[in-house]
Amino acid sequence: MPRVADHEERRVEVAEAAWRVIESRGLSGANVREIAREAGYTTGVLSHYFRDKRELLAFAFGLMVERSTSRISQKARELGLLAAFAELLPLDEERRTEATVWLVLMTASLQDPDLAKDLKQRYAEARSAMTPIFAQAVGEPRENLRDVADELLAAVDGITVAALTDPERYPPERQMELLRRTFVRLGLPTALRD
Amino acid sequence: MPRVADHEERRVEVAEAAWRVIESRGLSGANVREIAREAGYTTGVLSHYFRDKRELLAFAFGLMVERSTSRISQKARELGLLAAFAELLPLDEERRTEATVWLVLMTASLQDPDLAKDLKQRYAEARSAMTPIFAQAVGEPRENLRDVADELLAAVDGITVAALTDPERYPPERQMELLRRTFVRLGLPTALRD
Repeated sequence: MPRVADHEERRVEVAEAAWRVIESRGLSGANVREIAREAGYTTGVLSHYFRDKRELLAFAFGLMVERSTSRISQKARELGLLAAFAELLPLDEERRTEATVWLVLMTASLQDPDLAKDLKQRYAEARSAMTPIFAQAVGEPRENLRDVADELLAAVDGITVAALTDPERYPPERQMELLRRTFVRLGLPTALRD
Repeated sequence: MPRVADHEERRVEVAEAAWRVIESRGLSGANVREIAREAGYTTGVLSHYFRDKRELLAFAFGLMVERSTSRISQKARELGLLAAFAELLPLDEERRTEATVWLVLMTASLQDPDLAKDLKQRYAEARSAMTPIFAQAVGEPRENLRDVADELLAAVDGITVAALTDPERYPPERQMELLRRTFVRLGLPTALRD
């Protein structure tokens, strides 16, 4: 019987393989056999770690949200809010993979109510984790914090979709420029923290 | 031999069938046979109107962009810029279908460079058509019109993704509220024109 730690490590390994398959082949190419191949396992071994494709995808999405949330928290503390939200944009290979997995799974959830439910729950958890960090980073108390957060998230998601689908028009500098402009308009601090 | 008008009408009919299939089954379910069935034709008849699936999808996307661009122009003239951009949000069934087709095809294009090229061209055409309308509706000359347009589009796209994937949290009133807030922050006119 494998150790619990091995079990969790293996699930993470498989989820990362799922990310790569989703990025290169989209959801229609991301079947269990292909993910198993990418992870270096048989589908039989995979079924020991995930009940079905839906559980695997929900875990892969959750792991992505968890990692980016944790990077955002760290950046918010160390470098301020602008650097934190830049973690959500597809500015480099790692973040491009994350953003692609986000967009592919969100889009797939439009035709899959079970997947939609799973993703929404992971999103709600991330939102709860982020709210105090956001409130603290904003500094002064603001009445309409939820509105400002929704506006900021909409802008970040919109820049992300644009950058993923039209990278020539939205290189990293342009993405950051648009994020910075959004921060200024929302009255959010753009300064780097020491 | 069919009249040219019939030929174009038939292509539009098939494209609308493709929208419905994409909305209900996603891109993986939107194969040529399913679209033919939805349109009420055999795949043989369909091949008379479209060379292949890619041409059909590019046409379906282009038709959607064309229709929403034309509605936006009309609304901008009749009711002002806020009503115009509201046409892009999934506020009712028709616009929800359009927004879903947009998101599904944009996402699919991440793994399909040919489709990406087609969509980008349709998008560029829409952008060119919209630029003078946008400039006129903004009224006063502004140096950074391209920045403002990109910020507005990012916000609209972000609100759209949020509303499609989490309709309970983003009902039509909330979508409009966020759009209005964005207009105010960008210094764009929110008044309804008589």
